[in-house]
This record gives sequence, C-alpha cells and structure tokens, in this order.
Amino acid sequence: MSRSIEVCLTPELVHLIDFTDKLVIVVDIFRATSCMVAGMGSGIESITPVATVEECLNLKKKGYISAGERGGVKIPEFHIGNSPFEYMQPDLIGKKVATTTTNGTLAIKKSEEAAEIIIGSFLNFNAILEYIILSSRDVIIHCAGWKGTFNLEDTTFAGGIISSMSQLKSESDASYMSRILWKKAKVFGLEHLLMNSAHAHRLQGMGIENDLQFCCQFDEFNIIPKVVGTELQLI
Amino acid sequence: MSRSIEVCLTPELVHLIDFTDKLVIVVDIFRATSCMVAGMGSGIESITPVATVEECLNLKKKGYISAGERGGVKIPEFHIGNSPFEYMQPDLIGKKVATTTTNGTLAIKKSEEAAEIIIGSFLNFNAILEYIILSSRDVIIHCAGWKGTFNLEDTTFAGGIISSMSQLKSESDASYMSRILWKKAKVFGLEHLLMNSAHAHRLQGMGIENDLQFCCQFDEFNIIPKVVGTELQLI
Repeated sequence: MSRSIEVCLTPELVHLIDFTDKLVIVVDIFRATSCMVAGMGSGIESITPVATVEECLNLKKKGYISAGERGGVKIPEFHIGNSPFEYMQPDLIGKKVATTTTNGTLAIKKSEEAAEIIIGSFLNFNAILEYIILSSRDVIIHCAGWKGTFNLEDTTFAGGIISSMSQLKSESDASYMSRILWKKAKVFGLEHLLMNSAHAHRLQGMGIENDLQFCCQFDEFNIIPKVVGTELQLI
Repeated sequence: MSRSIEVCLTPELVHLIDFTDKLVIVVDIFRATSCMVAGMGSGIESITPVATVEECLNLKKKGYISAGERGGVKIPEFHIGNSPFEYMQPDLIGKKVATTTTNGTLAIKKSEEAAEIIIGSFLNFNAILEYIILSSRDVIIHCAGWKGTFNLEDTTFAGGIISSMSQLKSESDASYMSRILWKKAKVFGLEHLLMNSAHAHRLQGMGIENDLQFCCQFDEFNIIPKVVGTELQLI
C-alpha cells in the first residue's frame, strides 16, 4: 500500500486525525518553527519548547536562554523574543534555549502521539523533502495556525511539501486546497502571497518586516530539528 | 463600523467564533442544504432537521416524510434519502419533512447561538446575497464540512459569497483562501473544480452524478429557508 501524506489545518482538528506511527512535520512559518530552524542551523545546541511563560522562566534559572512571545511581542523577562535574527546571534552558539510561543509550541505538544516529530519551515524545505523520501512512514503536516484558526502561511508550506511528494497518496480536500495555495505562491511569489496573510497584516507596524521576508526564504539551512524527549535536537 | 463577513471552515471550529447576534448561513453543498433549498423551493411546507435516526423515525410516526442518509446512503426505513431530486417530487408538495444527515444537521445545531440561521447553496446563491445586503448583521458562513474536516465545496461557496460582498470587512486567512478557491472555480468552472473534491470521489459509483451536477447549478430557486424554532420555513 502506498504511503500517504496529509495536512492538519490547525491544532484544533488533531482529534480527527490518527497520529499513531506517523511522521509529523510541525510548521509555524511566522515565526516559531522558522526561528527553531534558523537557531539550530546557526549553532544552538538544543531548543526546549514549553507551554507556559512560567516553565520557560524556570528553565532560565537553570541556565537556559529564554525565548518567546505572546501576541507577537517579546516577554520582558526573557533573553530574546521570536525573531529568527535573534536566534542566529553568535553568542547563542552551543547554548540551550527554552522557548514558548502562542501557536508553535502547542502544535508540537498536540503532536505527541506521533512516532516522530520534526520541525519544518521554508528555511529547511529541501531537507524536509529528503527526510520524507528516506522515511517509510505516513506523513502529517501539522499547521500551527493562529489561535486555533486556519492560516495561509502554514497551509501554503503544506501545499509545497505535498506537491513535491506526488508519489505519496493525498486525498483530502484540505490537501487539494493546500496545493492550490502553493500553485498560487509559485505564480505570484511566496512572499507576495504571504504578505497578504492576516498574520502579516497583524504584525505590520511591529517593525518585523525583515523577519517575515526572512521566513519566506528557501533552504537557508540543510538541517532537521527533531523532538527527542522534551527538546529539539539536530539529526 | 463596517459589517463583517467570515467563514467557519467546519463545525469543529465553532468555539473559536462568536455567533452571538450574527446572521449565519449554513452550507452543505453535497447534499443536505442543496436538498433543503430544492425541496422548499418545490413546495415542501417545512423541514425539521434532527440529529438522530431515532428522532426522525419518531417524527415519521407523527406523519412527517422522513429523509436522510448516513455515509451518503439512504436509511432503509426512511421515505427518501438525500437526493435533491427526491426532495422535488410533486407528492411532497405541502408536506412536512424530517431530515437527518451526517454533516448538515450538525452545522445547523452548532449554529444555535446565532441571531438568525438561513440555509445556503448554489441553488439559491443570489437570494442569499440579497438577504445579506438587506440585513444589518455581521455574517458567518458555516461550512458543514465532512465529519468535522474541511471540504472544498462548502468553502468555495463561502468564497463566492464573500467575494460578492466586498463592501463587508473580511480579514481572516480562511476568508482569503475561500476567495482563492472561488476564483479558481470561476476560471475552471465550478462543476469541474468540485468534481475533484474528496466528497465527489467518495460518492462516485453510487449513481448520484446527476445529484452533484444539480448541486452545482446557480439560482434555480429564489428562496431562503430559515430556522424558525425547530424547523425550516420559507421567509
């Protein structure tokens, strides 16, 4: 039987999908998983995603770099916020980071029934494709979305991965729609499409246009962060 | 403040949307709401949507015509199944119908916080647009989906309505995506697009191609079925 690849449009729909034995790719393009890829691709030793600010502060006391946001804004007591450029600072090389974000952390947590959880973004797009090809598992792309709702950037990423994996079975309407978005991105430009997203509009005026543009770059890093126990490690 | 129009992609996401004071349009193109519009446009007096087969059979004992399906198949003890042609039979004129379907009935039930619930389909597309224009309420298009998941046909309908209502504010990514689907339908033809849907594939071989084609027709009926108490009535 041929392998399958599907998309979970938001963490609110996980109960409709069987994650057992699956390879799950968690994606939160703006900006959690893009940060994770940028950071680990730049030398951060490990990233521990946690659900709450309190857990993050506890890890800070144990020597972790604390990172994250609520509503797109850095938490005051934290070392860094949720910008990929902050994650790429040279003084973070070899450090352990604890992070909490609105949507991305939740999507990782809600994927825990899966056999493997890896972290996807446009920044490691080809690495993800290669990992899927070498795997023998069925695949789910788990979109972090925005506070439980559908978002454009994560679903377009899913469409890109699914479109590149035409040898895998993918029969749902969500998958079909994601491939339509991907085609649209190819015609109009990914950055152009995503700058029309609600998230990009929300973040406008917060001085992070550079972040969003960076998150739309392909294959800056040839790495796969993977969930191992409670943290992300490179494989 | 300008009025807004939004889309709820599946009944599983209703908790993320405030239905209070809203005008809600429930849509289940294949085939529940198309049947409701076809039936009431052809002379059925009222339709009572119920959640279970048992409730439907109880109403049958009280003289109602019983209608509905599970998994796309007619329930043996029922008078009719879930085909718009069955709903348009002349011997149903003036009759009361009780119906239960997999997705459509649930979407109506889950909209009950709304100020008004009306029934949408391509068959009464323009009537819906006129009703929205004359209303002063914010609007939610509630897609019935498929067993809780996203579907193409209901979301494309939402995109069509939202695209025709550009004077209303609509800022979510779900709305933006639905308008992309609608544009796709306009370029390639609605029927062509929807025949690629997972639902159309599922229903293939069940001898209901005519049903699906009929559900893709525009403006066969200039009516609005509305939820009044426990039943749908024409307004």
